[in-house]
Amino acid sequence: MKAARIYGQKDIRIEDIEIADPKQDQVQIKVKYCGICGSDLHAYLEGWGLPTQPHPLTKRTVPVTLGHEFSGEVVKVGSKVTTLKVGDHVAVEPLIACGKCENCRKGDYNFCNRVQAEDGAGNFLGFSDDGGFAEYANIKEIFAQKMPEGLSYELGALAEPTAVVFEAIKKCGLRAGQDVAIEGAGPIGLLTALLAKSAGANHVFIIDLAQVRLDKAKELGFKHVLSPADGDVVAAVKKICPNGVDVAFEAAGVQPTFDTALKLVKRTGILQIVALFGKPITIDLTNDVIMQGIDIYTTLCYNNSFRQVLGILNNNRELFSQVVTKKISLDNLLEEGIKALSTDKEQVKIMVTPEM
Amino acid sequence: MKAARIYGQKDIRIEDIEIADPKQDQVQIKVKYCGICGSDLHAYLEGWGLPTQPHPLTKRTVPVTLGHEFSGEVVKVGSKVTTLKVGDHVAVEPLIACGKCENCRKGDYNFCNRVQAEDGAGNFLGFSDDGGFAEYANIKEIFAQKMPEGLSYELGALAEPTAVVFEAIKKCGLRAGQDVAIEGAGPIGLLTALLAKSAGANHVFIIDLAQVRLDKAKELGFKHVLSPADGDVVAAVKKICPNGVDVAFEAAGVQPTFDTALKLVKRTGILQIVALFGKPITIDLTNDVIMQGIDIYTTLCYNNSFRQVLGILNNNRELFSQVVTKKISLDNLLEEGIKALSTDKEQVKIMVTPEM
Ligand SMILES: [Zn+2]
Ligand SMILES: [Zn+2]
Repeated sequence: MKAARIYGQKDIRIEDIEIADPKQDQVQIKVKYCGICGSDLHAYLEGWGLPTQPHPLTKRTVPVTLGHEFSGEVVKVGSKVTTLKVGDHVAVEPLIACGKCENCRKGDYNFCNRVQAEDGAGNFLGFSDDGGFAEYANIKEIFAQKMPEGLSYELGALAEPTAVVFEAIKKCGLRAGQDVAIEGAGPIGLLTALLAKSAGANHVFIIDLAQVRLDKAKELGFKHVLSPADGDVVAAVKKICPNGVDVAFEAAGVQPTFDTALKLVKRTGILQIVALFGKPITIDLTNDVIMQGIDIYTTLCYNNSFRQVLGILNNNRELFSQVVTKKISLDNLLEEGIKALSTDKEQVKIMVTPEM
Repeated sequence: MKAARIYGQKDIRIEDIEIADPKQDQVQIKVKYCGICGSDLHAYLEGWGLPTQPHPLTKRTVPVTLGHEFSGEVVKVGSKVTTLKVGDHVAVEPLIACGKCENCRKGDYNFCNRVQAEDGAGNFLGFSDDGGFAEYANIKEIFAQKMPEGLSYELGALAEPTAVVFEAIKKCGLRAGQDVAIEGAGPIGLLTALLAKSAGANHVFIIDLAQVRLDKAKELGFKHVLSPADGDVVAAVKKICPNGVDVAFEAAGVQPTFDTALKLVKRTGILQIVALFGKPITIDLTNDVIMQGIDIYTTLCYNNSFRQVLGILNNNRELFSQVVTKKISLDNLLEEGIKALSTDKEQVKIMVTPEM
């Protein structure tokens, strides 16, 4: 079958490889769509997250098949699979976890104690095991989530990045009627805005420096889009919400956006981090956090969230479909996909299919 | 009456002043004991927290009567007071709050939106209104908490610093059976250890560089006391708790103790901050927090906690009494109290009484 294999920094090859039959606890899926993530870009540009030595759990090193935001149709089932059958449509939760350690047992399998690779390899299919930029993939039964009837495979593939954001919404406990601000209008920021809206947020402020991204936010129906280039965003938000917002989401991941996000939060509010930070940051804990009663929460991936996420996507099909800005064939992954994403800020989510 | 008034940095005077009758919503108490807090020391040494311009709510500037950890006997009641009577023993919750803003109304009166002074004046009796280093004090009825029958006034005065720690225990949700580590064995660190023990913590590790403080921790019954001078404390803790502790309490407030505290916490555990930090700190959010699933919580003062705290003190009278290492008269506040506390690390809590 055809698969996009990453061998290391700036080395992705579309190859023809064999795929084994699914193991007892796996299903084999025919991949329908697989989204390109910012982390795929980092893997390509910097070799980020790739296993250079055997991963503690999967024992894999590069090359691996890239891609972790995918959906497909079940074509084979392992002998011990009981909850899925051939023909089922599934969205893939691409995590790697032991299922046995303290964290796995208490449901925090996204923090499995046995997957901490010394080289920082990512604990995902598409990093430390074969992922979704391929014609077929073998997936553990527990990580293949049956999709709601009639939900498109594109939206099924969107479940993964949406789950990243959903986990943050879960963590901060966002309730209907609360006001939120979002730093960063990239794919994660826009998905945060959409989820906050679907959760009943009152005011939703979206902040970014890139006009093309703010335009996309407007297209998605958001009125309060703000650029720091146009003036003091804190003042602009406080004109509408005098005490600040209940929750600020940090979806940009640098010191200036972090600082602004903190200032946007009301006393006793929450700064919810959804981005990764490339560098350490400096915080005046006493004055900016402790004295303000602000809680700073972080999340990593998701656990036990896919069912809810697929429900939300199913209830808001048209809205979330607008996030998919381009569909390309697997053959064009590198040129039209990964490289385009790194230069073209008009792209939100590019979907890759082996069937085109 | 006699009162210890602070006029500014290094200027505390024992003076004879008048006290008004209590207002309608106040009681007047005869002060029995008032503990010396580290913040009193900062007020004296650096002028920390003192109102140099009229405080937004109390309109007070220096001089004010210092002291905020106090208990006393009700000697007069205002005309609208209904829950207290002359002769009642009360512990004082020394907060200043408007009672009307969003945060006050939702119970977070320690984050009242109307008390944010531009000069950073503290929102306590003893900073921005008259406190407890005096023979008498007027206290709002809602902030005078009736003490359990038979509880000593010393322990009543200990309710305030204990409430600071109790709030942190509340915030992190510490449950019986969990393992904890505490950075810093000063008064707050030791009270944290005692409260964690009374909350059923399994292992309690106490870490400090000062041997005299570790000795005090041992005296209080703690076995696992560790000095970074004696070797790698993270390794020592992980020998007993291989994954780390469920909650690490930061009661020291500097970069190195913060860094160590983070390393002591297990994946998905909590770093609970109880200290104030004198300087901004640097955090590698991605690797040390996000990837580890560690929550960092802070608290400021307390709200709605005094009843529980007084109950805990009442149930553990002997244990908590050991924290009081010295009793002095109000006349000697400066020399035997504040100055002693700044030099003598054997002192945990010094209690001041106007009746000696
Ligand atoms: Zn595990
Ligand atoms: Zn208030």
